[in-house]
Amino acid sequence: MIKTIAFDGDDTLWHNERIFSMTQEKFRALIRSYVPEGEIDDRLQRTEIENLRIFGYGIKGFTLSMVETAIALTDGRITARDIQAIIGFGREMLEHPVELLDDVRETVEALKDRYRLIIITKGDLFDQESKVARSGLADLFWRVEIVSEKDAATYGSILKRHDIAPSEFLMIGNSVRSDVLPVLEIGARAVHLPYELTWVHEVVTPSAAGDGFPVLERMADFPALVARLDQLAPAS
Amino acid sequence: MIKTIAFDGDDTLWHNERIFSMTQEKFRALIRSYVPEGEIDDRLQRTEIENLRIFGYGIKGFTLSMVETAIALTDGRITARDIQAIIGFGREMLEHPVELLDDVRETVEALKDRYRLIIITKGDLFDQESKVARSGLADLFWRVEIVSEKDAATYGSILKRHDIAPSEFLMIGNSVRSDVLPVLEIGARAVHLPYELTWVHEVVTPSAAGDGFPVLERMADFPALVARLDQLAPAS
Repeated sequence: MIKTIAFDGDDTLWHNERIFSMTQEKFRALIRSYVPEGEIDDRLQRTEIENLRIFGYGIKGFTLSMVETAIALTDGRITARDIQAIIGFGREMLEHPVELLDDVRETVEALKDRYRLIIITKGDLFDQESKVARSGLADLFWRVEIVSEKDAATYGSILKRHDIAPSEFLMIGNSVRSDVLPVLEIGARAVHLPYELTWVHEVVTPSAAGDGFPVLERMADFPALVARLDQLAPAS
Repeated sequence: MIKTIAFDGDDTLWHNERIFSMTQEKFRALIRSYVPEGEIDDRLQRTEIENLRIFGYGIKGFTLSMVETAIALTDGRITARDIQAIIGFGREMLEHPVELLDDVRETVEALKDRYRLIIITKGDLFDQESKVARSGLADLFWRVEIVSEKDAATYGSILKRHDIAPSEFLMIGNSVRSDVLPVLEIGARAVHLPYELTWVHEVVTPSAAGDGFPVLERMADFPALVARLDQLAPAS
């Protein structure tokens, strides 16, 4: 029997990846004015992944990675003004309005009286707290957990801290790697709701993903799936 | 009767401010090569405080503030290589070894069997988690709470979440503004342990501080103070 349902934040409750995509678009255009050819996206992504170890996830680290990539790709020719413009891209991301995905509010409202709802989201504490607040959803959730990494140990410690049995826990999110596999690993259940765009670092090879979890096409179908998983009649 | 004791992290358990000071020293030297005169520290601090609203506390935001200040102070003349050097200062801060303050380990060990101990620390999630891990103290604490702001609402929600009565809670930290006043405000007790350096943003005018809390000179004296506050015989 499911008692607690956790939702991922970025690209599950609200749009995130497309803000990064828009920013990368602007970044490419700026770098192209120095270096017309060259693999800008690849270099940025490599810098980002190398920097995860020291910066962690989040927009501030991404912004520092953009500046470093710009300096490297232009061989130090980029002007200070253009570096300021890149930091401006980061500021715009941080202040971008929080846009909920389709059917999110209705789904959360349909589930909140029957289950304890949690947000489990990864990234900068300050930025994620700000997004939760601006989403207008905070009051519908029992807890908000902001974590620096989503692995089995993280999920295990959240469940332990809140005294939740894995058999009574269900997670939904857009990332197989972060929201599904580590949840299955601790013996709980997870549902995959793919987002229109998926960050390359988050892609898992099909063999690792296995077949042991439901994949949803629309958030609106989640309450009915929960009811089925929970062996209850669908909520009216 | 005190049941739970919370310790601030930065400049209470481990050194932090002096890492910022060392970095500002390097930053000043770099900017002086462009602008021999001028109030570098003031400008940096003003940028930092203006950026708190969007970046929050932490080293990544501080690094972005250094870059912005450098561009502004040099009127855009700073080279990309020197901006990379500034980002390097930020990386060094993030990877700087965690150095415990005097008597910290002994004090925590002396208290841990009699009280539930918590770390309540402010800043970047990823960076603070890394510091807690590298401090070697994690196993001595019951919980670690990383927060984006230390105000009465934050302390109130931590106490509520852990079902701690204010009358049974004691906080110790180096900042009157962050570790003492908001704790007193929710009806709990707090002890001030000043650090050798105090960040300007953290200074509270004497009138706001009042006199309602003990000030310690040395961490080593804390267990005896706790015992007095707790109306027990001093721990042997």
